[in-house]
Amino acid sequence: MATPKFGAADPDLAALYERLSETSLQPLWELRGLLTPEPVVRSVPHRWAGKELRELGAKAGELIPVDRGGDRRVLACANPGLDGAPYAVSTLWAAVQYLRGHEVAPAHRHTPAALRFIVEGEGVWTLVDGDPLHMGTGDLVLTPSWTFHEHHNPGPDPMIWMDVLDLPVVAALDAVFFEEGPSEQAARTTAPLSSSEAWYAGGAGLVPVGGPGLPSHRSPLLAYRWADTELALERQMSARESGYARLRYTDPVRGGDVMPTMRCEVERVRPGTTTPTTRQTGGQVACVLHGTAQIKLGAGDAVQVFDVEPGDIVAIPSWTPRAITAGTQLDLFTTSDAPVLEALGLLRVETALKESA
Amino acid sequence: MATPKFGAADPDLAALYERLSETSLQPLWELRGLLTPEPVVRSVPHRWAGKELRELGAKAGELIPVDRGGDRRVLACANPGLDGAPYAVSTLWAAVQYLRGHEVAPAHRHTPAALRFIVEGEGVWTLVDGDPLHMGTGDLVLTPSWTFHEHHNPGPDPMIWMDVLDLPVVAALDAVFFEEGPSEQAARTTAPLSSSEAWYAGGAGLVPVGGPGLPSHRSPLLAYRWADTELALERQMSARESGYARLRYTDPVRGGDVMPTMRCEVERVRPGTTTPTTRQTGGQVACVLHGTAQIKLGAGDAVQVFDVEPGDIVAIPSWTPRAITAGTQLDLFTTSDAPVLEALGLLRVETALKESA
Amino acid sequence: MATPKFGAADPDLAALYERLSETSLQPLWELRGLLTPEPVVRSVPHRWAGKELRELGAKAGELIPVDRGGDRRVLACANPGLDGAPYAVSTLWAAVQYLRGHEVAPAHRHTPAALRFIVEGEGVWTLVDGDPLHMGTGDLVLTPSWTFHEHHNPGPDPMIWMDVLDLPVVAALDAVFFEEGPSEQAARTTAPLSSSEAWYAGGAGLVPVGGPGLPSHRSPLLAYRWADTELALERQMSARESGYARLRYTDPVRGGDVMPTMRCEVERVRPGTTTPTTRQTGGQVACVLHGTAQIKLGAGDAVQVFDVEPGDIVAIPSWTPRAITAGTQLDLFTTSDAPVLEALGLLRVETALKESA
Amino acid sequence: MATPKFGAADPDLAALYERLSETSLQPLWELRGLLTPEPVVRSVPHRWAGKELRELGAKAGELIPVDRGGDRRVLACANPGLDGAPYAVSTLWAAVQYLRGHEVAPAHRHTPAALRFIVEGEGVWTLVDGDPLHMGTGDLVLTPSWTFHEHHNPGPDPMIWMDVLDLPVVAALDAVFFEEGPSEQAARTTAPLSSSEAWYAGGAGLVPVGGPGLPSHRSPLLAYRWADTELALERQMSARESGYARLRYTDPVRGGDVMPTMRCEVERVRPGTTTPTTRQTGGQVACVLHGTAQIKLGAGDAVQVFDVEPGDIVAIPSWTPRAITAGTQLDLFTTSDAPVLEALGLLRVETALKESA
Repeated sequence: MATPKFGAADPDLAALYERLSETSLQPLWELRGLLTPEPVVRSVPHRWAGKELRELGAKAGELIPVDRGGDRRVLACANPGLDGAPYAVSTLWAAVQYLRGHEVAPAHRHTPAALRFIVEGEGVWTLVDGDPLHMGTGDLVLTPSWTFHEHHNPGPDPMIWMDVLDLPVVAALDAVFFEEGPSEQAARTTAPLSSSEAWYAGGAGLVPVGGPGLPSHRSPLLAYRWADTELALERQMSARESGYARLRYTDPVRGGDVMPTMRCEVERVRPGTTTPTTRQTGGQVACVLHGTAQIKLGAGDAVQVFDVEPGDIVAIPSWTPRAITAGTQLDLFTTSDAPVLEALGLLRVETALKESA
Repeated sequence: MATPKFGAADPDLAALYERLSETSLQPLWELRGLLTPEPVVRSVPHRWAGKELRELGAKAGELIPVDRGGDRRVLACANPGLDGAPYAVSTLWAAVQYLRGHEVAPAHRHTPAALRFIVEGEGVWTLVDGDPLHMGTGDLVLTPSWTFHEHHNPGPDPMIWMDVLDLPVVAALDAVFFEEGPSEQAARTTAPLSSSEAWYAGGAGLVPVGGPGLPSHRSPLLAYRWADTELALERQMSARESGYARLRYTDPVRGGDVMPTMRCEVERVRPGTTTPTTRQTGGQVACVLHGTAQIKLGAGDAVQVFDVEPGDIVAIPSWTPRAITAGTQLDLFTTSDAPVLEALGLLRVETALKESA
Repeated sequence: MATPKFGAADPDLAALYERLSETSLQPLWELRGLLTPEPVVRSVPHRWAGKELRELGAKAGELIPVDRGGDRRVLACANPGLDGAPYAVSTLWAAVQYLRGHEVAPAHRHTPAALRFIVEGEGVWTLVDGDPLHMGTGDLVLTPSWTFHEHHNPGPDPMIWMDVLDLPVVAALDAVFFEEGPSEQAARTTAPLSSSEAWYAGGAGLVPVGGPGLPSHRSPLLAYRWADTELALERQMSARESGYARLRYTDPVRGGDVMPTMRCEVERVRPGTTTPTTRQTGGQVACVLHGTAQIKLGAGDAVQVFDVEPGDIVAIPSWTPRAITAGTQLDLFTTSDAPVLEALGLLRVETALKESA
Repeated sequence: MATPKFGAADPDLAALYERLSETSLQPLWELRGLLTPEPVVRSVPHRWAGKELRELGAKAGELIPVDRGGDRRVLACANPGLDGAPYAVSTLWAAVQYLRGHEVAPAHRHTPAALRFIVEGEGVWTLVDGDPLHMGTGDLVLTPSWTFHEHHNPGPDPMIWMDVLDLPVVAALDAVFFEEGPSEQAARTTAPLSSSEAWYAGGAGLVPVGGPGLPSHRSPLLAYRWADTELALERQMSARESGYARLRYTDPVRGGDVMPTMRCEVERVRPGTTTPTTRQTGGQVACVLHGTAQIKLGAGDAVQVFDVEPGDIVAIPSWTPRAITAGTQLDLFTTSDAPVLEALGLLRVETALKESA
């Protein structure tokens, strides 16, 4: 407790405060910063450069093994505002994972949900409850809460990708569970098409009848391929006239976000186009797939401008204004905690400006 | 009222019956057939041959104009069990529509919802609230309740397709409204891609953010293209090992049936494969797109077998067992009233046999 | 087919029409009345007088037994517009049921759902899947689709009540199933409180944890008591200032209508108050519990005015304007098919006037 | 970062770690405790004695004023495991609030939602967006997210009650907003019945038609009265035969929890009855209304037993086993974050034992 507002010198009050302390009580009137006019956000706007992530990933690849115990060769983005916590923003873990040729990151599962987004390269397979998902550039791959997952790289070349997890949220709710997979050598299955995609990637609105039961709380489709995303972006672009298109990845059978804790979206911005300035409650992590841009975060004196290129990861804290001006054509992948805020009635979105070309 | 069960000769009862009749009342105990152990269905299994539908459509094309007043050159499938009512089964209207080259079927709208399925040919455009949808072989095109729709054929060749409407249901609910479109010459718009598809046909689970508002009570996607359906069928076939695949057309954003009154599905059956025998409450109308098959309807002595080929339309009344054996590879499109029965808690589905190869 | 519009004398057309007839096809352009600007409703506004219903019920009680085979001593309201069909409006069965002292109407179940509303008297018990529900004045008692139900009257006095069923809807969907209950003598259970109420009638928003599983497609609460309804009406009246209050009976756990096919509501209108004129698609059956009123149905020249008193049953066909002026304080119970039209996107409600005092 | 697991002495690794640190990255393989087999929960089982809460509340009443700036005279339960954070468990704020006669706690609103539960006394009015809610013993009163609320005590006697807020969750999501109400003197409205109750407390399943629009994300009913709860508990007790009854407070119109972040339940346990041992993810705060009991928290060596009496507040951390044995008849009110975990697919509930009498 800082210096008391009331009666610092009053012996009765001092006695009360002592009693309170002994009884594990705290006087509200002496607490500060609990209820603020607007969110007071500790995490700050930040950019991790793709170039450095690739270089440091490769370096870690040389020095650090991947196997049971270590499990994953992962570099976590630690927001400078969060006092050393390994989180990109308050509610999201973001990281790069690096797998050398012929390596296997063994199977485990945990209640925190994860997703993988691939900025470059291909060739690693992620198995989700045994279903082999090939990972290629621009793909989004899900490893939902409590599904066993492992990665294996059958080829000789290393691969790097981005991981995003809802770990801070699950931890804040005291709901982290973890379990290792079978300890015999990890599976190395591949397949022309994952079972998930064979059943559920049939096209917009085409869903199976009589297939496997739907999982609760998440999409049955576990991989969203860039070729489909690219087509959808261009189709939408043709319907808008703003140089801007935006897609959300959703459950193809029931609608809604791919997982209950993370929203995934991709935006395409034509060269020279500036998006409207928007802000929303909750954190976001953006990753540049293609193109270059200026990402402007914050407002007034506090504005920060990041020049981004492919592989860059950008932290956008809660309630921070955001605007983007594309240099070359930009494809930007973003994960947010919006489904959490939405479910709890706490999502506020403010759009200051219309889209402008 | 037929011969009374109770006291035909009793003068007191006769007096009561007279009073009841004067008072617009009927004695339940004299009514028959109200509550039967199983549905007593008036419509019967029936097949309309595609060959005849095409021939008679063409003949009507020669003899009957299409314009305001006539509006549509349509031949309605009238189930022989329904005493002259122009319905394929109790709850569904099915018909073929024929449009000659350079003809226009003018705009109107009505609360009964319609869908179009194209068995052969292409080239006609259906405008739904002004959005131009090209119609090609194997496509499903929706004209949902109370949307203005018109058809125009810019080319020289005639075209024929199947219409299915929920008209019997809407009529039974006393909820039919109808309105003609603007009376000046109908629009003849075409476009590389309908607006509906530009926004919503982006691929499984890829939905727009910030697009046009979603319509209530129906899919925002109005055309489902055969190329996508074909791909989805083959993908699913690779995941099953039964020589059988089955898809439902759904709202790509929110899930659920394309329209609240009609369920659309397509089945692919490999040559020689027999599907399990199933039956369900509510009526169905099936249409052969590709291949040949024996469709067995009914059970025991009442079984009827139809040898079908492309363009054939088959009425499957409520609670009638159905099994299919494909000759050449079969693609069968089916519309049912299952969403109605499901919403009302009245859908019963019975599957007698497992899928067999 | 009536006189053809086109080419009655044209031999080619005549030949086509003959071919169509042989092929079970009908030319749309010769069909009339399928798509009308507004609903063309066969049922007409009608009132069955409570006085006559009671008298004829009693007379039937003298002359007609109730037991297996007859099952129910019921007089069905047959709308004069429906050509002898025993339905109050196109989509609803309404009737009075009369049970003499010590009689039992044996157990059966059927997919059509039923409800009972009691205008006067008490003492009969309805068992729903064995749960004994006492019936008293002003109570609403549900016997949902496919629940076994029976009525027994342990006391010496006869009792009469109103039944409403969704039978026309279920019949139109070819989904009627019926089954008799166990043939040994019917149960004659009573209880201080039905199990349904012990679990679910705990008060607004108070629902059990760990109780019996919820039934699908209907309310778990099977009896709504007049004392609760009366209290709720007066509370609401105190919040409005219009001399008018209106309640809907709903599923207390999940919200929504009590059953998927029938909406139940009750209105209280203070003496001298006139309600706004409204109309809606779908049929309604109203029953006067307390008070007197003028019920005005229709508009313009077609308007009909009914002076109603307790026990009167009134048929309100689809899309018919309705306004009520209370004489003494009116309590009016109404059942409609609105949940059906709502689920199918076909409900239109038009309110011409604001509430007026 | 603690002592590195890998190559503490390896200069290459040291160089990598330095680069990572400069780049705001952290190596996953050196992080500990992120993914644990079961939740590692910092908050501990704890009991705040009602006797002390009342005494210290009264003492604060003597020494601390309530007005603009201070706003609330509240003592927050600070879980001893949470290092001084003023939270009862990780996700819930619990406190007692004390208002002297004739005092007013001025209006404000905030995105964290609050509820009030009254263990003894009555006479204070909480205004929620201007609607006056009387507070009496056993009542639950809601002040949902972003509703203006104030408390005023028109009588001479002080009053104390329990507050529970979802503040830790809203803070973790960086979504706290706060606004003071109008600065003129606070309203002191009272009313025979709150508007909220006039519309929505009509009884189980009885909901208004044509009333005020429903608020999103929370119950329209803001006060749940003990008389109703008591009746519901006894009705349920009559249906069970276990000496145990349990109710959830819900949205009476749409079903579901009263607010999206907090679940409210009340249990009645007959003297001598022991409840089954259960545990669930997420935190709980229990408050004794009537009776005495032993509350056993934890398992094996870590078990703690609390002898509780009216007014006691008990913190039950995530995944902590809980069993209760009633001394005299117990009424226990509990708030949990279960709706949050449920919405996110993270709620696990384990019931070790059946209910026993």
